Amino acid sequence: MQTVENISTEDLQSYVFRLADNALILGQQVSAWCGHAPALEEDIAFANVALDLIGQATNWLNYAAELDAKDVTADDLAFLRDKEAFRNSLLVEQPNADFGASLMRQFLFDSYHYFLLNELVKSTNSRIAEIAAKSVKEVTYHLERTSDLIIRLGDGSKESHQYMQRALDALWGFTAELTTADDLDKKMHKAGIGADLNSLSKNVSTHMKEVFSRANLTPPQTQEMLSGGKSGRHSDYMGELLDEMQSLRRNHPNASW
Amino acid sequence: MQTVENISTEDLQSYVFRLADNALILGQQVSAWCGHAPALEEDIAFANVALDLIGQATNWLNYAAELDAKDVTADDLAFLRDKEAFRNSLLVEQPNADFGASLMRQFLFDSYHYFLLNELVKSTNSRIAEIAAKSVKEVTYHLERTSDLIIRLGDGSKESHQYMQRALDALWGFTAELTTADDLDKKMHKAGIGADLNSLSKNVSTHMKEVFSRANLTPPQTQEMLSGGKSGRHSDYMGELLDEMQSLRRNHPNASW
Repeated sequence: MQTVENISTEDLQSYVFRLADNALILGQQVSAWCGHAPALEEDIAFANVALDLIGQATNWLNYAAELDAKDVTADDLAFLRDKEAFRNSLLVEQPNADFGASLMRQFLFDSYHYFLLNELVKSTNSRIAEIAAKSVKEVTYHLERTSDLIIRLGDGSKESHQYMQRALDALWGFTAELTTADDLDKKMHKAGIGADLNSLSKNVSTHMKEVFSRANLTPPQTQEMLSGGKSGRHSDYMGELLDEMQSLRRNHPNASW
Repeated sequence: MQTVENISTEDLQSYVFRLADNALILGQQVSAWCGHAPALEEDIAFANVALDLIGQATNWLNYAAELDAKDVTADDLAFLRDKEAFRNSLLVEQPNADFGASLMRQFLFDSYHYFLLNELVKSTNSRIAEIAAKSVKEVTYHLERTSDLIIRLGDGSKESHQYMQRALDALWGFTAELTTADDLDKKMHKAGIGADLNSLSKNVSTHMKEVFSRANLTPPQTQEMLSGGKSGRHSDYMGELLDEMQSLRRNHPNASW
């Protein structure tokens, strides 16, 4: 087993898959709003976010492909991996129940994503630092946009407030997985490659609190926190999502687009 | 009835709707590939095209809203008009039967769109000239991309060639509507506002011929040419398409996103 800074290539690739798959799966989910958002401006904004995320995923997957023992491409990793090999968090695979749910999911992820990338630009792994630096500008804009929208809708009409509170209630239980370090996170942080989820968690929490306070929204006080996605244990939604994303490529394995 | 350069506001708006609705409906159709294209690069490329088209549609609809007798917004015109009020050509409402059909539809439209916008930048109507000038750079890239892809796939494997020839056979009958002038087209051209579809038709035909020759594809020799969309007579596909695009806004008429 090769090691990079005392980290096995396998561990490094698993870590990169977490970064790649969060962006890929969320990008795929957001793209379902392309052409279906309730207003032209939102349609364009959501499509832009989808594009950014899929572009970022491509960069991460190119690196994951370089790390792979087999001769694979980013496309192979996106379209031919099985569900269990995906390392995205459960949050991003939660369904587009309605526009409010998609927006809340985006805000919760953006809050994490922004502080994560700001840590990763300092990674001792130059490829990770480089891809994070490329992504951070886009994600800064994502977080500004969703923070504004959450405040506008949370502190809007009675109807829009209820809509957003309901979305927050449904999704809050998936936030801990993002910011709670497991063994791989700890190992990668110790090696100077990965983010310090402890300090990140505080930053994320401070930002969310401020936005929720201004939005007049309250995270549920007691709620079971769910995790598993980043270790490959996914919800049923993930299967449907992959079917949709992968079917064309799997059904035309030798097509050269 | 107000007149602008001897043209009624109503006629001018109808003409602008043709420009707006082709971009809007095709953008909506293309966006269905967001997250579902067979490769990451194609996914990003298609999403970019969808974004460009929806952005262009927004510009056209803003102008159409200014011309409207009622106090309406671009969003109202996108999401609350009935099927019969849409003025897009039948070509752009043809379904995403498969990736090849979507690509061929895009190439046929891009070929027309590129030469159309290059005419409209010379329009005596400064708003039309301005929006066309903003769009033309994007559409130049769209046409380059689809021309390359048509050649690559048409002149590719036996399977990909058959795939593209089948798409061309299915869609060719919708091309005449784009380049055949009806009364409104003639009136707008005479007033110096609209494009000269006669000369445009020659340019479009020359470009298509060159690409098809290099792609080893042959348009059907005899085929019925269908039209109606640009006068508001749409296919059944258009109803489904609008249902999908408009449902969220129509079901939440007072939501402020």
